[in-house]
Amino acid sequence: MSLLVLGSIALDTVKTPLEERKELFGGTASYASISASFFTNPSLVAIVGDDFPSEYIEDFQRRNIDLSGLQRVPGKTFRWSGEYFDNMNNRKTHSTDLNVFADFTPTLPEAYSTLPFILLANIGPDLQLHVLDQLQSPRFVIADTMNLWINIARADLLKLLTRIDLLSLNDSEARELTGQNNLIQAGALLRKMGPTYVAIKKGEHGCYLFGPDQFFSCPAYPLENIQDPTGAGDAFAGGMAGYLASRFSDSNSKEPINFEILQQAVVYGSIMASFTVESFGTDRLRSVEQKEIEERWKVFKKVSTF
Amino acid sequence: MSLLVLGSIALDTVKTPLEERKELFGGTASYASISASFFTNPSLVAIVGDDFPSEYIEDFQRRNIDLSGLQRVPGKTFRWSGEYFDNMNNRKTHSTDLNVFADFTPTLPEAYSTLPFILLANIGPDLQLHVLDQLQSPRFVIADTMNLWINIARADLLKLLTRIDLLSLNDSEARELTGQNNLIQAGALLRKMGPTYVAIKKGEHGCYLFGPDQFFSCPAYPLENIQDPTGAGDAFAGGMAGYLASRFSDSNSKEPINFEILQQAVVYGSIMASFTVESFGTDRLRSVEQKEIEERWKVFKKVSTF
Repeated sequence: MSLLVLGSIALDTVKTPLEERKELFGGTASYASISASFFTNPSLVAIVGDDFPSEYIEDFQRRNIDLSGLQRVPGKTFRWSGEYFDNMNNRKTHSTDLNVFADFTPTLPEAYSTLPFILLANIGPDLQLHVLDQLQSPRFVIADTMNLWINIARADLLKLLTRIDLLSLNDSEARELTGQNNLIQAGALLRKMGPTYVAIKKGEHGCYLFGPDQFFSCPAYPLENIQDPTGAGDAFAGGMAGYLASRFSDSNSKEPINFEILQQAVVYGSIMASFTVESFGTDRLRSVEQKEIEERWKVFKKVSTF
Repeated sequence: MSLLVLGSIALDTVKTPLEERKELFGGTASYASISASFFTNPSLVAIVGDDFPSEYIEDFQRRNIDLSGLQRVPGKTFRWSGEYFDNMNNRKTHSTDLNVFADFTPTLPEAYSTLPFILLANIGPDLQLHVLDQLQSPRFVIADTMNLWINIARADLLKLLTRIDLLSLNDSEARELTGQNNLIQAGALLRKMGPTYVAIKKGEHGCYLFGPDQFFSCPAYPLENIQDPTGAGDAFAGGMAGYLASRFSDSNSKEPINFEILQQAVVYGSIMASFTVESFGTDRLRSVEQKEIEERWKVFKKVSTF
């Protein structure tokens, strides 16, 4: 075990132009840890209420996800409700009920504090910092964020950026955080805010990875049908972090984490995101078979090679 | 000489959030033929008025662009005026003065009728068909189009699609013409309308090439500054057509035109588009040096290889 995943576990209600689904197994830590579980055995830090279905807990367990950092408390699980419009690129949040999440200030299990790879999935930057403060000397920290935190918790977010190795965010968030419309410039500006690496997710257009004098344009998997984009970014971050953790599973490995390895991590993240959007909630992600991952890797390679 | 280029020659007025420029050397055939001239000696079919600056004619000549199909007539040259907003992805046309273009129904010079490679740059599909009708048996026909023709000349455009090998259009046009938001599905639908190959241009996000059971995702060149997006699509088509014509410069070549060759053509088209947007009008495109093209090819390769 070498990867910590912090984030939310939620019961989501999602509406698309075609369909509405209620009480879906979701949340940023769910998508991220399930995605990472195809590569490594992540250690979860999250909270659920006593209404959270035990079958979902069992799903985590079946994947060898370490739940010693998962709190189960009286009360209702976090709930999110949102709607997608047009080409699935526009989203509106209808409601966010924090419930048991409102007072979540976790104390990490002893064994978690020395984990080398850290994924701070999308959640308030105060909570991301609170977890980061309890770690001894993590080797590589990835953080994801969203427009909400840019708007209501910018100071904490800027503080977080100075303490992470890779920031993952989407194109509109990159523009909002930097005030720069050009994504190449936005990526460079974000790197100046702290993280050595920045991944800008562009939805159906793939993603960009920025590093020191380095740049990678990762295509999107050519999907004909997208049912529900929720969690794609979390599964992306989880796949990326899971790949990295598996690549350095010998914790004494001195091999440097370089741009080429992060490119592979971005491709695996994109693969996991491509599964995620094929059905509602975590349904498709949870049904992925290991061999499908390698099949999609070959497609990524083929469609981008000339 | 093996490439015919049909399109407009214009004096453009372009406004961006930062600047306005008047009477720029533009037009779809200008961008396309100048772009193609880095690979082959194109034969132009177009019309200008007697107000068209002779220095621009001399520029065509210096590039060994065959002007025997260029009409110079009394009257005013075609003029277009437009404005770009926000991130340069939104454009509004302010005025279109056809002038000498209004009655342009060219009879091709004899020598043009046997040219093997044909680029019907963006212009009314009736005119594209009129030129196509005068050709004996072209080997490969590329056509570009725009939203205006989808709206006011759909019947002619659909007829044209059954007679070309490759259609080049941008993402919003692909969506409009097919009624399909998903670009992977839109590409497949466009192929069913006639062309064996379809290139969907996605601006800052690169482009897609669709072929029989084949798909290529070409990245965009990572540009930090875009001054004027006008003509990028025309330069793309010109670079693509020019590369193809140069690749098959021996007109007896029996080598099949396959997907791998078209992928290279798309990369060279994207390279030429990336120069075009770096300054107003055809300014940057006209100052390109041959070695810069190969330098950008290497960058395209590097940023998309994992």
